[in-house]
Amino acid sequence: MQRMPGSAIVHAAVFTAGALLGGGIAVAVTSKKNQQHPVLPTRAVPVPTTSGLQQEQQVSVQPRFVGTDVIPAPALRYGNPGPIADFIQRQAYVAAYDRRLRHPAWTAEHLTLASLGKSRVTPPEENSGGDRSNSAFKEDDSLPVVFRSKLSDYFRSGYDRGHMVPAADAKMSQEAMNETFYMSNIAPQVGDGFNRHYWAYLEDWCRRLTGTFQDVYVFTVPLYLPKKDVDGKWRVTHEVIGNPPNVSVPTHFAKVVLASKPSSPLTPDQLEVSTGAFVLPNSVIADDAPLTSFVVPVDAVERAAGLTLFSDQIKLGSKHICQTTKCEVIVRRFDDARKNVKRITGPKS
Amino acid sequence: MQRMPGSAIVHAAVFTAGALLGGGIAVAVTSKKNQQHPVLPTRAVPVPTTSGLQQEQQVSVQPRFVGTDVIPAPALRYGNPGPIADFIQRQAYVAAYDRRLRHPAWTAEHLTLASLGKSRVTPPEENSGGDRSNSAFKEDDSLPVVFRSKLSDYFRSGYDRGHMVPAADAKMSQEAMNETFYMSNIAPQVGDGFNRHYWAYLEDWCRRLTGTFQDVYVFTVPLYLPKKDVDGKWRVTHEVIGNPPNVSVPTHFAKVVLASKPSSPLTPDQLEVSTGAFVLPNSVIADDAPLTSFVVPVDAVERAAGLTLFSDQIKLGSKHICQTTKCEVIVRRFDDARKNVKRITGPKS
Repeated sequence: MQRMPGSAIVHAAVFTAGALLGGGIAVAVTSKKNQQHPVLPTRAVPVPTTSGLQQEQQVSVQPRFVGTDVIPAPALRYGNPGPIADFIQRQAYVAAYDRRLRHPAWTAEHLTLASLGKSRVTPPEENSGGDRSNSAFKEDDSLPVVFRSKLSDYFRSGYDRGHMVPAADAKMSQEAMNETFYMSNIAPQVGDGFNRHYWAYLEDWCRRLTGTFQDVYVFTVPLYLPKKDVDGKWRVTHEVIGNPPNVSVPTHFAKVVLASKPSSPLTPDQLEVSTGAFVLPNSVIADDAPLTSFVVPVDAVERAAGLTLFSDQIKLGSKHICQTTKCEVIVRRFDDARKNVKRITGPKS
Repeated sequence: MQRMPGSAIVHAAVFTAGALLGGGIAVAVTSKKNQQHPVLPTRAVPVPTTSGLQQEQQVSVQPRFVGTDVIPAPALRYGNPGPIADFIQRQAYVAAYDRRLRHPAWTAEHLTLASLGKSRVTPPEENSGGDRSNSAFKEDDSLPVVFRSKLSDYFRSGYDRGHMVPAADAKMSQEAMNETFYMSNIAPQVGDGFNRHYWAYLEDWCRRLTGTFQDVYVFTVPLYLPKKDVDGKWRVTHEVIGNPPNVSVPTHFAKVVLASKPSSPLTPDQLEVSTGAFVLPNSVIADDAPLTSFVVPVDAVERAAGLTLFSDQIKLGSKHICQTTKCEVIVRRFDDARKNVKRITGPKS
């Protein structure tokens, strides 16, 4: 808790834009100064729209409080705070973007052999799928500029631009893969030892589930978890990157999976459902850490994130995924491999 | 950033529910253990509903992602994470409740002389308005139990149950005032020197605006602002109260006001609009701190909170409230006065 000495306040000038507030609020100050033009809107001024959201091709962004369109709320006559989270639907995933934290609140995917371009029925045509070397990170222009996370926010931050929905989960087309490179699908992740290693192994494990299960659903959830301090109090501490600082760095990331398959060849309509949740700290994790050491109850992720991922029926009625398949990552130095490929093969045609 | 020694991971048991995760996730773990009953839902299992929200009398709670009802999202077949924020509409205010932080993301009010029971036209009947001694804090049963903030979360936390919409702004009826005591309208505030003093002076100032302006709109916004650490990085640190810890303690609180009145008696339809934003640290503030020292641009609050409070048109086209009225609090020891009244007059009839 911050204490502000009274004397400091007493000497403060007017309109200091938060110089006293520990610098915190200053990070959010725009170049626009307080505008004080004496314009006189009349009663006839239309109620301002909630946001500057633009409908993009194949991008549907829904404001959070659709209900406010229906219910008259006199208190919102001049302003409706509107969505913190934007609902984003893309080819390979859906997601909610948190405008305050400036990364996804959650992402959701449906993985199958087919979606991964591994269908036994229709083998993918040559070069039909996405190739990440053709994709580039880009700002999500479906979001208002002030709430976007930007490439520059991550520059020299010490953090990787971590995909919440991995590029490799969107190989069905180049466009689908490109969409995973929107900054609205990105959160700051420790690079070496996490994003490029253990987290990537976990993503790979999720994809490999499609070899065992017919349908695989994956939620990815950034988390902010408290730690107990020496004074016995629980506190969350997290970095905020960017200039001005505006993108929050999660303390942990969760993957929550639901995988289903026919309970037997004789009962293709009877599905056996398996669920499991894994919470990893956003920090270096040893390659030899067992995946099972990160298992937590699905409830735990739901409570920490404020989300309802599965119904009680599903939570109570499913097997644990580590009972129905092996919860074990394969250690692969993906990034090194990629680098080598590039170094050896030279520029792509 | 937390580092996790690899050795600790290697020795970890299966299903430890996050013992390795710095204790953080453990706070969210329910008494329910990982359920592993081999039940076999079929394809015919209905898609789980987003939440257990109940419609209450005069309480309208809208799920955030209404859009997901409209747009088919295969990835959400078995689970839709649903609202973090619930839209709540009550007699004296509207609000968004943040399920992760377990306090409002924002509240909005429309204050007038009439709404405060001070109308010159129709003087309030004796005892018609609300009296806070008849109100009691209560859990908001329109929210799912796991996402509610509870009375017990604040017990012995060291923090007051701070009203976002003040009880005194809802004097139009006892019921309206009672609604401000829902825990969904409450956030943890430093009591002595803040909630009971300077914050209360600011609330009083907002009410007094109705003496000068015809219409007064007030947004109250809990904030989490980063501070620059000695290592040059910006970090947010905030306490989390409750057992298990689940209610976040904001570092700051903002009041953003829009006040309007006829620009002259000759042009009652031409409104002069004034706006202003004040950000206060959630800590002891000296009584003699000038209110103007807490002024920040409205933009600053919007960026920090991820909210759009006013359109650019309003932000650019309004005067600053400290130009159109005196930004000065009146120091009143509200709590002491109340205590004295109770002590002197004895129990109410």
